[in-house]
Amino acid sequence: MDSETYMDVRDEHPTNAEWRTLIDEFEDGRRQGAIYNLDRSDDREFDAIFVGGGAGGRFGSAFMRARGGRQLTIDQWPFLGGSCPHQACVPHHLFSEAARELDLARTLSGRFWYPEFDESKASVLDMVQLFVSGRNSAHSFMNWQSKEQLGMEYILNATASVIDAHTVEVEGEIFTAKNLVLATGSATVFPDVPGIDKAGVFDYATLVEDLDYNPRSCVIIGGSKVAIEYGSFFQAAGCQTTILARSPLMQGSGLHHIDDDLREYVVDGMRRRGIQIFDGTETLEILGDERATGVRVRMADGSVRDIPCDMVFVGTGERPNSDPFVKALGVSVDDRGAVIVDDHMRTSVPGVYAVGDLIGAPMEMFKARKCGMTAARNIMGEDYSFDFSEYPDFLHSTYEVTWVGLSEREAREEYGDVIVIQMPPPGVPYGDIPLPCSDGTMLFAFTHPELSGFQKAVFDSKSRRLVGAHHVGYGAKDGFQYLDFLIHKVGVTIDQLAEMNELFLNPSHFIQLSRLRAGAMQLESL
Amino acid sequence: MDSETYMDVRDEHPTNAEWRTLIDEFEDGRRQGAIYNLDRSDDREFDAIFVGGGAGGRFGSAFMRARGGRQLTIDQWPFLGGSCPHQACVPHHLFSEAARELDLARTLSGRFWYPEFDESKASVLDMVQLFVSGRNSAHSFMNWQSKEQLGMEYILNATASVIDAHTVEVEGEIFTAKNLVLATGSATVFPDVPGIDKAGVFDYATLVEDLDYNPRSCVIIGGSKVAIEYGSFFQAAGCQTTILARSPLMQGSGLHHIDDDLREYVVDGMRRRGIQIFDGTETLEILGDERATGVRVRMADGSVRDIPCDMVFVGTGERPNSDPFVKALGVSVDDRGAVIVDDHMRTSVPGVYAVGDLIGAPMEMFKARKCGMTAARNIMGEDYSFDFSEYPDFLHSTYEVTWVGLSEREAREEYGDVIVIQMPPPGVPYGDIPLPCSDGTMLFAFTHPELSGFQKAVFDSKSRRLVGAHHVGYGAKDGFQYLDFLIHKVGVTIDQLAEMNELFLNPSHFIQLSRLRAGAMQLESL
Repeated sequence: MDSETYMDVRDEHPTNAEWRTLIDEFEDGRRQGAIYNLDRSDDREFDAIFVGGGAGGRFGSAFMRARGGRQLTIDQWPFLGGSCPHQACVPHHLFSEAARELDLARTLSGRFWYPEFDESKASVLDMVQLFVSGRNSAHSFMNWQSKEQLGMEYILNATASVIDAHTVEVEGEIFTAKNLVLATGSATVFPDVPGIDKAGVFDYATLVEDLDYNPRSCVIIGGSKVAIEYGSFFQAAGCQTTILARSPLMQGSGLHHIDDDLREYVVDGMRRRGIQIFDGTETLEILGDERATGVRVRMADGSVRDIPCDMVFVGTGERPNSDPFVKALGVSVDDRGAVIVDDHMRTSVPGVYAVGDLIGAPMEMFKARKCGMTAARNIMGEDYSFDFSEYPDFLHSTYEVTWVGLSEREAREEYGDVIVIQMPPPGVPYGDIPLPCSDGTMLFAFTHPELSGFQKAVFDSKSRRLVGAHHVGYGAKDGFQYLDFLIHKVGVTIDQLAEMNELFLNPSHFIQLSRLRAGAMQLESL
Repeated sequence: MDSETYMDVRDEHPTNAEWRTLIDEFEDGRRQGAIYNLDRSDDREFDAIFVGGGAGGRFGSAFMRARGGRQLTIDQWPFLGGSCPHQACVPHHLFSEAARELDLARTLSGRFWYPEFDESKASVLDMVQLFVSGRNSAHSFMNWQSKEQLGMEYILNATASVIDAHTVEVEGEIFTAKNLVLATGSATVFPDVPGIDKAGVFDYATLVEDLDYNPRSCVIIGGSKVAIEYGSFFQAAGCQTTILARSPLMQGSGLHHIDDDLREYVVDGMRRRGIQIFDGTETLEILGDERATGVRVRMADGSVRDIPCDMVFVGTGERPNSDPFVKALGVSVDDRGAVIVDDHMRTSVPGVYAVGDLIGAPMEMFKARKCGMTAARNIMGEDYSFDFSEYPDFLHSTYEVTWVGLSEREAREEYGDVIVIQMPPPGVPYGDIPLPCSDGTMLFAFTHPELSGFQKAVFDSKSRRLVGAHHVGYGAKDGFQYLDFLIHKVGVTIDQLAEMNELFLNPSHFIQLSRLRAGAMQLESL
């Protein structure tokens, strides 16, 4: 291996800024070859080789190191952290924040310090380019933290070829380990539609890699979270957007625990902001010669329509990247390609674990990271299981939409007698109550109260326990992580909520509204 | 009593919109006299009369009703809810949200969809007027909710004269009750400085009531939370602001549990945005003839300086409105005028309770409301105490700044061996790491990473328990309410945090960062 294709950083300690420069050079082709951070003086066998250094692989590796184990993590990219900071959740959050700010700028156009909104300045391309210009900062931090703080060993910018359940080849070198942890994620399934490979057809990944023009009209195929989130951003960024879904938005796509009122508040809000949404559609063809110029679709009523656009975005969902492991190891997969694991993350092949998006839905960060931790704990001798059937969830429209536990409908089915604490209260027009208002919806509360959000908490009347919480607005997401714990691990009651110390104004009004009702022996809705 | 000075709404059920119209009419003088929502057919004695229908009075009343008790709540304003939605926390939150948006618009001036920032459009007056134009919506909701949902009885727009511990006179009518609950709040102490009564000198209350010009330069006397929050807003709204404090900001003023690094991030951020901050000052005189034109101040070095301005804002703190009760009932007060109560909210006079700002610091919503609940529970026969020595806290600069539990320094004193999980990590320049980033700091993360926030969590190494959490950014406030419960009631450990389900990107990184370290038997900082 010559120095142009081999970089050993083991005895060097690049700063975050130096890593940033290195990764920039790898990305633009000035540098090539693998990056080695390998302790060749350590003669212990690896407890595990992690194939893939994204969320699951990196967190599993960190946990194993913290436990005193030895791991090696291999990733195809010149950085750890995987698709989240490179193509997925980080750009999505930047775009969603832009959508919120654009929504505010357009809604308040010509008022206060907001000038008349200039549609020509709204640009999807600007935000994509901003993201691409900055993403290597997060990447450099992952490399730095993993090496300097977490003590991990890794090989980056290299392909790991799995030979058997204990053996991986990287750049012609053989590495063996007691176990393998597979963590190579998933990729968008492009639907089998004529013309889907035309220029101008993107998914979330190719959008950030390939977009080189500013789209002004978009058709989104699919109704997933990604479709809602990117559609809301495109529309806010001046790109007229049409969503072609099969099921009504937020009803299919594996989202659970969503009530009709929450869904309507969100979807009506999207429509109000100009997005066209069609359910029950079937996409027939991507129109255009070399470049997509529209989409032919069969509508719910059976009619066929051509919708012109200069961008097509695919938001139909993702498929695990499991094929290489089926071939090399014979691991069992389900009919969607997800590697089948038990609650210890063990695959059908002894010594081989799989984590993250590779094992299927939900394809969320908490699951990927906790899968990695679960694999590490079991490999290190602990008997540890992870059940991800219940979890808090969120998506962005121009709002942050968050939910945890049961929907009101589900709670009524399960408990019969439930009470609901809701803002605005049922029957009161949204525009009559500028609550819930807090950081993020105050300007709406005083100008367009009907845009200032929606929320409710659901309690089982008998046990007085909180069983579900739902929020549309901003600033509640962090709290819902803890509400998940409080609901599922503590069994928090309305009486305990009433005794908590609220930070008012707070985005979710659950604590103070609970206090207004908790005095009663027989609970009532609010 | 004729109909012009007597309005009985008991058998009417005004909607929120109708209440809004009524309150507008009371405010602009088209209507006068008291509003009665009194059930004269109920011959039960009142369990309590609440003198004051703000946070403490209203929540206490609601709790008493929920418990089956009978209360009467009397307020001088034509609405319930008190100063929070009228002059205090609600305008402050609107102004702080405006400050954040103005900060973003100025920082990103000329980039993306943000036009060159036009300083002439920034206006304190605009936001004050916006608030005043809309505040009656919140007021109307309080009246509606209290009557229709909470079953309260009340008399509004009327003065309650306390006769003795069981007797109150309102508009010439005598009302008796088993108990009194005093809940009349506090008011700004205007410092004893020559010229303090000139035009152009405001506190948070007179600002919203009286401001009739757009200030372009402001001197703030005092270094309280209110000074920081309003100062940050004034500066963002184009009004050059100077803060004259005695102690360094966020060190005095009753704020506890704040570390130097958090404080520096916030105060440096204020300075960076153009606010002049001077510690160790003594205000000598308000300059100007009838109208304030500047402030004469003795600086820390003993020199005397005149600072010109067209507005003076007083942020030195508040004093409880206890004088009438000292006079009428002889309740004991401390040297700051706070009514002295035990942990049941009982004053020195049997049958008389006091709640909220009237009993002194901390003058926060959670305390006022929970005081009200505490009084109600005890009056209704429960033996219930409320200890507010520990609580989560926050303030706004152009950021939301939130903290709970111990500072790192306090934790080291108490536990000796603590670990700290911090972003950005100590020693790494803020500008090198665009983390922590999440909803609200994403645009900064990709343009000005040094502005994207700061956070840390402090753990006792031995017990592995979280003992303190600190955050500068947006979107963490709601979560800190639950962290307070988790720290003080659950004793949450780093291991439990590591097993929680994060919603990524999340404003506070405490869950996932805990997971990176929790694997170790001997914890290390991160």
